[in-house]
Amino acid sequence: MSNIELLPMAEPDSSDVAPCCPPLTERPFTVEEAETAAPMFKALGDPVRLRLFSAVASHEGGEACVCDIADVGVSQPTVSHHLKKLREAGLLTSERRGTWVYYRVEPSVLAAMGRLLAPPHTS
Amino acid sequence: MSNIELLPMAEPDSSDVAPCCPPLTERPFTVEEAETAAPMFKALGDPVRLRLFSAVASHEGGEACVCDIADVGVSQPTVSHHLKKLREAGLLTSERRGTWVYYRVEPSVLAAMGRLLAPPHTS
Repeated sequence: MSNIELLPMAEPDSSDVAPCCPPLTERPFTVEEAETAAPMFKALGDPVRLRLFSAVASHEGGEACVCDIADVGVSQPTVSHHLKKLREAGLLTSERRGTWVYYRVEPSVLAAMGRLLAPPHTS
Repeated sequence: MSNIELLPMAEPDSSDVAPCCPPLTERPFTVEEAETAAPMFKALGDPVRLRLFSAVASHEGGEACVCDIADVGVSQPTVSHHLKKLREAGLLTSERRGTWVYYRVEPSVLAAMGRLLAPPHTS
């Protein structure tokens, strides 16, 4: 009752994919680093999934339910399947509210992927 | 003979994958944008390919031949196969010099991928 600390934003379905690795140009990746990072890239390696991710990421308020992004031209079960894959890769988090599951981009994972792609230092 | 202009660095095997798209968080990707960008992510979506890419990207001088990156633990034909995939995706350029083909990271493509992953603007 007296706990007045602010809790971090709840991310109920956040996966365990965490920022893992240095920039790809810094040194050769270890097996473990590659196996952590590759699934994040793979998740965005499908055109339909990339469009869905972009639809969620750019949706008003930074989140969207399946009902919001029905215009990608694939069936709703297919949309749900791809959103689940993106969630499993740690790129989206999800939360059920009433009838719908809402998906939200996980900004720390985007930032981590961006960091991997940082260009080499030039001197 | 009188042409004293400096030519840009030759990139003999550069593919047609060009920086294509706004950040994923900016607006929903079009079909065309998704089909241009997805292959770049897919190319990095395999752990072995990611390690090879990192080995080339971090190698002294920013380039490497198959002979330089034999320690990934897969056969040389497999290395060559994956390097070819990375080249086809536009992530590496290649140039034959003598016996060996040298691979080099295409910095503009790295930068373009990094831009795709730029986090959403917060106001």
